Parts: sequence; structure tokens; C-alpha cells
Amino acid sequence: MQLYHYFRSSASYRVRIALALKGLDAELLPVHLLRNEQLAEAFAAIAPARLVPLLVDDEVLLPQSMAIIEYLDETHPSPSLLPGNAAARARIRALAQDMACEIHPLNNLRVLRYLVHEMKLSEDDKNRWYRHWVETGLEVVEKQLASSAATGRFCHGDTPTLADCVLVPQVHNAKRMNCGLGHVPTVMRVFDECMALAAFSSTQPSAYPESA
Amino acid sequence: MQLYHYFRSSASYRVRIALALKGLDAELLPVHLLRNEQLAEAFAAIAPARLVPLLVDDEVLLPQSMAIIEYLDETHPSPSLLPGNAAARARIRALAQDMACEIHPLNNLRVLRYLVHEMKLSEDDKNRWYRHWVETGLEVVEKQLASSAATGRFCHGDTPTLADCVLVPQVHNAKRMNCGLGHVPTVMRVFDECMALAAFSSTQPSAYPESA
Repeated sequence: MQLYHYFRSSASYRVRIALALKGLDAELLPVHLLRNEQLAEAFAAIAPARLVPLLVDDEVLLPQSMAIIEYLDETHPSPSLLPGNAAARARIRALAQDMACEIHPLNNLRVLRYLVHEMKLSEDDKNRWYRHWVETGLEVVEKQLASSAATGRFCHGDTPTLADCVLVPQVHNAKRMNCGLGHVPTVMRVFDECMALAAFSSTQPSAYPESA
Repeated sequence: MQLYHYFRSSASYRVRIALALKGLDAELLPVHLLRNEQLAEAFAAIAPARLVPLLVDDEVLLPQSMAIIEYLDETHPSPSLLPGNAAARARIRALAQDMACEIHPLNNLRVLRYLVHEMKLSEDDKNRWYRHWVETGLEVVEKQLASSAATGRFCHGDTPTLADCVLVPQVHNAKRMNCGLGHVPTVMRVFDECMALAAFSSTQPSAYPESA
């Protein structure tokens, strides 16, 4: 397998974590978003959305981080990243989507660029926008984690799941952008549990040479 | 089962379609977003994100439209909304996420309100923002549909899937906001195929009394 990724892209980081949790080797092919490498013809030809991550598994070419992780979970079931019955799996997916659909899309690079270049937002307003969605969005996750007996060491139970693969990159972004995190103690406890595992720490953005 | 929904919320419409495709009855409980009913204490107590849709199935309380549809597909497998092998299921999920993660989150009501009230965008700029993400986002979907032999009468093959449950509400929004759609003929062909089915037409926003 090969994974087109960008070291700082949190959607790429989600997939790197999932691969590591499953002990799968994939060749990492960097696509440098700040240098606009995603717009190059060769990449655009295989990635119509011009977004990373993109997984290549023989003839299968797959965009979208959550779809990729579900694919890895179906093709390499152990350890499961979506364990339990239908209700448990739904809770895990909903937590992942609370971040992947409600927070992250508002703050990715192309959106921030559009806000500044086309909507003429100031740097201050752009940062306020960023922090607003992270802080209110993580508050929603906090409420779900803190109020449910299904929360364990990790977002769901005592093994990492799809939800943790999404939570950790989101918190990394929040820290990098100096978002407030004092109001989400359960999120931060789970984050710390995850970061104590090599699958999360060895795949973090700062682990890649491009980050230098 | 009960579904908290808003007639015009496209995420709610996705779930109404899935229920109809599976022939499942759910009591529909309206939450009027324009009247801010999602902020009422009683609803916020069961829905930390204060978003619709929210599915109640006995003791299971489930937010997030795609997680709900996967749950319905696991608990009521026939007809399958995620048919085929792992690669097929991944393609369907990725198409759904191309819309549910890349287009819709940028254009939902709370985001548009924030742009106008907090970021002080003009009505014109807000509409330009809306159309930009719909038009460029659907172009990505078009490329994936038009370039793949897996596309059939519907987004994937000849039966409706999760991807169609997301595509149809997205196109409804696009039409309502006068977005350009001439550049996405395959998307529109699939939309027309879907709307010829009662599961899609009988659950559309205009079918509800609140829309009057």
C-alpha cells in the first residue's frame, strides 16, 4: 500500500494512526500542501478532489480519511477500530463525525485561504473563526465523552478506535493554534492516553522530516 | 424509532431517505432550526451538539446522519445501502464524505449565521461563499462519477446507496441557492434517477407541512 499524505494534514494523520494501530506498512508519499503540490497534474489525475490523504492498495484508489480507515478495518479486521455491536459502532462513528464533519472542514487550509483571499477576512478574524469552531466543537465531544458510561481509557472503551484516530489530530491542531482546551478535560485525558502509545506519537506531524 | 429532524436540513433529509429505502417507520419529531428550537433545554439535554438529525431507537440515542445510516444498515441490512466488497463500500463512503465533509459543513445554517453576524460578511459575499463550495465540491463528485465504471443508474451501481442519500439533499440545496449545475451532468442524471423514486421524492423538504 501507498499513502499520499501531508505531514501536518490532520486527515492524513488519522490514517497514519490507523495504519500503525493495525501494524500495516504503507509507503508514505508526501504531497506538500503549502507548496501547492496537490495542484500538480500528476496528483490531480488520481485525486480529483486534490486532497490528501489518498490510499493506493493495488488497483484500489481511495480518498477520504474515514472511508480509508473503514476500508482498512474491513480488509485487516484485527485489532478492530470499530468494535462492538451496531450501537457501539454508531457511537464511535458519530464521535468521529462530530470532529470530522463539524470542526475540521471549517478549518482546513483551502477554507482558511478562501476566507482570507476571497472573503478578505483579517488574520485576527481568521484566527477567531478557527478557534470558535474548535472550542465549541470540542465542547460537544466533551459532553458526549463525559456523560457516557461507554467512554473508557479511550473515546469508546479501553482500546483505540476510529474516534481516537480523529480526536488526536484535532487536538494537535487546537494546540498549534492556541485554542482554549481547559473546558474539555475528558478530551484531554483521552488525548494523553493516546499519545502514550507509539501508534499515535510516532505518526505525529513533528515525526516527519518535512516538519523541520 | 423516532427521528428528530428539520424539514429543510439536508442531513435530516439523508436519514429520511434511508428510512424510506428500507421501508422503516420512524416517528418524525420536528425541531425548527430557524426558530432556534434546537437551543431549547429539553432538546439540548439529549443532543449535546444541538444539531439534527437525532435518531432514538429504544435506549440508543444517535446523532450524525452518516453514523445513523450505517446503524440502520447494520440493524436492518436489506436492502443494503453499502453493498459490495470492501473497495465498493469504501467508494460509496468516500463519495458520501466528499459531500458530507467537504461541501455541507461549510454551508449549514450555524456557519452561515456566524459568517454574517460575527465575521460581518455581506449577504452577497455569503452567497458567493455558499456557491463556491457547492460548485467546486460537486465538480469533484462529478469527476469521480463520470470517470468510474462503477457508476451505474445511481452513484454506485444500479441500486441507491449511502452516496445517493447524501447527493440528493446536496443538489436540493444547490438548486434552492441558485448554484450553477451545468458542469455536473452525471450528478444531475443520478439526481433525476433518484427523484423518480418515492423514497427520495416523498421525503423531500417540500413534502412537510412546516415548509408551507
